[in-house]
Amino acid sequence: MNATIEFFFDISSPYSYLAATQIDGVGARLGVPVTWRPFLLGGVFKAVGNQPPATLPARGRYMLADLHRWAAAYEVPFSFPSTFPMNTLLAMRALTALEPAQRPDATLALYRAYWGDDRDLTRPEVLADIIGEMPVARAVTPEVKGALRATTEEAVARGAFGAPTIFVGDKMFFGNDRLHFVVAAVRGA
Amino acid sequence: MNATIEFFFDISSPYSYLAATQIDGVGARLGVPVTWRPFLLGGVFKAVGNQPPATLPARGRYMLADLHRWAAAYEVPFSFPSTFPMNTLLAMRALTALEPAQRPDATLALYRAYWGDDRDLTRPEVLADIIGEMPVARAVTPEVKGALRATTEEAVARGAFGAPTIFVGDKMFFGNDRLHFVVAAVRGA
Repeated sequence: MNATIEFFFDISSPYSYLAATQIDGVGARLGVPVTWRPFLLGGVFKAVGNQPPATLPARGRYMLADLHRWAAAYEVPFSFPSTFPMNTLLAMRALTALEPAQRPDATLALYRAYWGDDRDLTRPEVLADIIGEMPVARAVTPEVKGALRATTEEAVARGAFGAPTIFVGDKMFFGNDRLHFVVAAVRGA
Repeated sequence: MNATIEFFFDISSPYSYLAATQIDGVGARLGVPVTWRPFLLGGVFKAVGNQPPATLPARGRYMLADLHRWAAAYEVPFSFPSTFPMNTLLAMRALTALEPAQRPDATLALYRAYWGDDRDLTRPEVLADIIGEMPVARAVTPEVKGALRATTEEAVARGAFGAPTIFVGDKMFFGNDRLHFVVAAVRGA
């Protein structure tokens, strides 16, 4: 079994946060590696013509209840931030600047900061306080900017239209609520 | 425990079909009644400003794979119909014309006819062949038309924006993929 789980996420996406709290556990139980791939959800939306789901007021009200239900089921903190949506360009570039092995912990720290502690991740000093100064300094380099853009374009080319998007080989799964199908795909791979 | 599960559905909705194959089993296992409530998804979309999810091409491609995954998991037939969306006004009126106790079987028969056997449910004679002549004849009465409209308006007033929409008391759940939260809500009621 050579399967890998690729996890595409943006800090701005609450369902990606929920999935991020689970995905390494899923991989560990199945004995397969998880690759954390920061991308820019705004770039995906623009490329495919999608809109944030909460744009529709009735859906936004329901989503808030739904997010709290998932957070309670997973036993993770959840508090809707005072600023939403937040521009996560700098945060996603900073995560891109890290070594792959450093990304899961740094990503979870940013998720908790935004979806638990209402911190302002548009500010470089807040980001540096949470994940260190190096990735924030490197975030503005052309190499890192290009890498984030390339990951976003790759996800769109492979069929993504939202976040989280998870791949097992060429099989795509959308949403925190499809982790059971991710498990089935790895088992069948 | 006085909980009831209210199941709002439209034959045009594939995720409602999937949920319809499961919902009576959920109620039976929990020992609570399920009320099958035909409504008009097009009326809901119009009232809240929503659009069918497959309107976005990337989402439509993904949904097709996702629907087949759910159908395989539930071990129910699934075949995307040659005409989609289909105007289900007459079908939903006919289901409204039935006695509540007759609705589950008639609904499942129409779901299988559309999502399994690609039958044209806009034709009165096809409907009558599947669920009998009485409800099709009664479908055009002002009483039945008004009852379907009232159910649709009630769902919107309670927060619905798509289908299936399931209520346990005042708690709303959207989608075939939230049946586990429906179970939890009944258990907590």
